[in-house]
Amino acid sequence: MITVALPKGSLLRDSIELLKSIGFDFSAFLDSSNRQLQILDPTGTAKALLVRAQDVPVYVQYGQAQLGIVGYDVLREKQPQVSHLLDLGFGGCRLSVAVKASSPYRRSLDLPAHGRVASKFVHCARDHFRQLDLPVEIVPLYGSVELGPITGMSEAIVDLVSTGRTLKENGLIEIEILFESTARLIAHPLSYRLASDGLDRAIAQIREAVLTPARS
Amino acid sequence: MITVALPKGSLLRDSIELLKSIGFDFSAFLDSSNRQLQILDPTGTAKALLVRAQDVPVYVQYGQAQLGIVGYDVLREKQPQVSHLLDLGFGGCRLSVAVKASSPYRRSLDLPAHGRVASKFVHCARDHFRQLDLPVEIVPLYGSVELGPITGMSEAIVDLVSTGRTLKENGLIEIEILFESTARLIAHPLSYRLASDGLDRAIAQIREAVLTPARS
Repeated sequence: MITVALPKGSLLRDSIELLKSIGFDFSAFLDSSNRQLQILDPTGTAKALLVRAQDVPVYVQYGQAQLGIVGYDVLREKQPQVSHLLDLGFGGCRLSVAVKASSPYRRSLDLPAHGRVASKFVHCARDHFRQLDLPVEIVPLYGSVELGPITGMSEAIVDLVSTGRTLKENGLIEIEILFESTARLIAHPLSYRLASDGLDRAIAQIREAVLTPARS
Repeated sequence: MITVALPKGSLLRDSIELLKSIGFDFSAFLDSSNRQLQILDPTGTAKALLVRAQDVPVYVQYGQAQLGIVGYDVLREKQPQVSHLLDLGFGGCRLSVAVKASSPYRRSLDLPAHGRVASKFVHCARDHFRQLDLPVEIVPLYGSVELGPITGMSEAIVDLVSTGRTLKENGLIEIEILFESTARLIAHPLSYRLASDGLDRAIAQIREAVLTPARS
């Protein structure tokens, strides 16, 4: 049986819709009263795990799920040992540097040397400033990163931006894009190579569903 | 003006009640429609930041908040450079090792060498097994740690337990307690030493409120 790790949050609805189009129904996860973390497809041919987005690659890397759906941002930040198969096209957003609109900074290199940058994406942020040869202190946060510049703790943030509403509401502006992100299909490398449990067929079906414009 | 960093989640209500008893009203944070991350007390003498529990010590360490309320579990895991002032008594829970009830393991040392332990508390878990001289692989997760043993990814978990309901619902049992945790009052070390902004008075009032049984 194939097990798929699905991410809680913004990518869940489109992930479930995509799997439905190839015959796997995990829509029970969309029920707001759902407390189950793993469910069987009604046909009994596939299982899904509902986990935090950052945990999807963990379950896939350790082989508890042969497939997973997760944002490219998580793959860039965590660098998990998984096979990266397919861009699924949905869940578009970008990892960006943002600063107070009232600040004089309009690109990363305008930031003061030895300034502070708050981020949930510590590795991506560090790489970005290292490539620019600009020494900054990365302040790791778990949530509400926009409070960094508002409270004066940091000059900038590196955070995911989709609509830009949160930045705007907090008087921040985006000054540089590190990379664009979308949802990706990942696989356990060994399961993928062995094509066990009909994995190759499922992957081919997902590929076709994504490439067929009729879906959207 | 004093700024206090308050943790989202289970400690918030008691934290706000405690501050109210010394004259600071931040109950607007308890309004479910609240979207603000920082508010002024109606008297204009104190400010509060509403942040993730793990971020409370960050704001205090960098001096954006002079005081913070956070679980002892977070202080043990993150080891932040803050002054640890007071046990506030509420928010009791414990960091424990748990396994499948159907497994043969009844204490940490029963676990197989080179087995896997899933946890959000990577440092605490690593220290625990290092002290026992039992080599295990710690699998870092962000949420729903109970899925580790259920899916067979790990033999055990190290996680916070309060009522034990989540463990029970998932067929897991607690086999060892690493430490007990409660909410703590922390302070920015320099602000505390300088007793600036009437900080010493506020801390004395909190201490008195906590030690006076009338509060509970």
